Amino acid sequence: MSLRMNLDNIAVVLHRPRYPENIGAAARSACNMGISRLIVVDPRECDLTRVHKMATHFAADLVEAMEEYENLETALAPFQYVVGTTARLGSRRPAVPKPRKIAETLISISQHNRIALLFGPENRGLTNAELSFCHALVNIPTAGFASLNLAQAVMVLCYEVFLASREDTGTLTPRLSTRRELEDMYGQLTETLIHINFINPENPDYWMGHVKIHDVFLRLKSSSSLTLQKISHFWMDTNE
Amino acid sequence: MSLRMNLDNIAVVLHRPRYPENIGAAARSACNMGISRLIVVDPRECDLTRVHKMATHFAADLVEAMEEYENLETALAPFQYVVGTTARLGSRRPAVPKPRKIAETLISISQHNRIALLFGPENRGLTNAELSFCHALVNIPTAGFASLNLAQAVMVLCYEVFLASREDTGTLTPRLSTRRELEDMYGQLTETLIHINFINPENPDYWMGHVKIHDVFLRLKSSSSLTLQKISHFWMDTNE
Repeated sequence: MSLRMNLDNIAVVLHRPRYPENIGAAARSACNMGISRLIVVDPRECDLTRVHKMATHFAADLVEAMEEYENLETALAPFQYVVGTTARLGSRRPAVPKPRKIAETLISISQHNRIALLFGPENRGLTNAELSFCHALVNIPTAGFASLNLAQAVMVLCYEVFLASREDTGTLTPRLSTRRELEDMYGQLTETLIHINFINPENPDYWMGHVKIHDVFLRLKSSSSLTLQKISHFWMDTNE
Repeated sequence: MSLRMNLDNIAVVLHRPRYPENIGAAARSACNMGISRLIVVDPRECDLTRVHKMATHFAADLVEAMEEYENLETALAPFQYVVGTTARLGSRRPAVPKPRKIAETLISISQHNRIALLFGPENRGLTNAELSFCHALVNIPTAGFASLNLAQAVMVLCYEVFLASREDTGTLTPRLSTRRELEDMYGQLTETLIHINFINPENPDYWMGHVKIHDVFLRLKSSSSLTLQKISHFWMDTNE
């Protein structure tokens, strides 16, 4: 019997889902794979009767406990690690790992940290601005036709995480920064860079907003997914 | 760039699906994973408008080309290798492999043989009689709640087959017997066993029907999935 790792720290987060049936099917998939926390952010429609129908009675408890938030920032604030799913691969999204590759890392991190598996709306996926909340991206491999049904994408990622949870990874990752702590760090960094006249106080978002500065950290993360966390901890230690 | 193996010989076969939406979602999943042949057997309902809606326009061609059969025997006749999915594991279904384990074998076999990935009805799965058509079984691992949505099960199996198709397995399996050839072999075996007074001619199905004799071959297959094929070829060679 292989060791089973705890999946209680992993949540599925659906950002702006459009169809209650997809929320229900995602709930059932998560439940199948041992993930018991589901969060919806600003759903276009969330008719619980339709959600429950697709979730079936097996996943009814998961739907009952489902959390709903108005915006992504609030929903993700308590999480130390956010993984965003993307079907699009471009120059801005280089070397995005596959579910199998990232699953083992997630299990390791999840033992002492809360992880959000973030999925975008059915019609467009996650924008670059929304992906800036993420510590890592993941791309589900497909044969040409890359657009997966939302609940199918949830299934594939949860399936890989569940399989990885049954293997002994041998390593555990220490507690990391939450999204809120990271946002605080970005805020302090902005003030400091304005203070030393490195950026224009009239327009700090040009460098610090959701595009440029997050890119720097995303690139750091490409070589090591924990680099950002180390910088964040170092930053907070030296600013306390 | 890894080698991509041909998936043209692999078909998804849905036995008695109950909901057109599940047929459509299964079509989309297969399409996502590069599998372009879909067969439905005795569907309870197959409203193409509802099928197409869930398949989306991306998988419309696959739905247009979808084949429909009245019974499982006819549908499976041209296939050399049938893999049945089962959520139930019992004494009659020992040591059922997982998708990841079987996927590499399937890719090897599929290069010179037609493979059917067989899925049972939503409400009950495949019966033991229906599983007797199968050369191998596969069980999708789950955390306690084992009942997957039909299209989700299709997705997981097709996903694993697709991933395996991108790896060089290094081995190819020669052409095997079709289901029709195997049924012919069972027929000849029955006649022979009656002829030598081994079984009662009044009630040959007692030994030869869908339970007992198939069990013998299934047990042989447990130790080697190709044993049955070898016996079948040997049998046909010596009876021609």
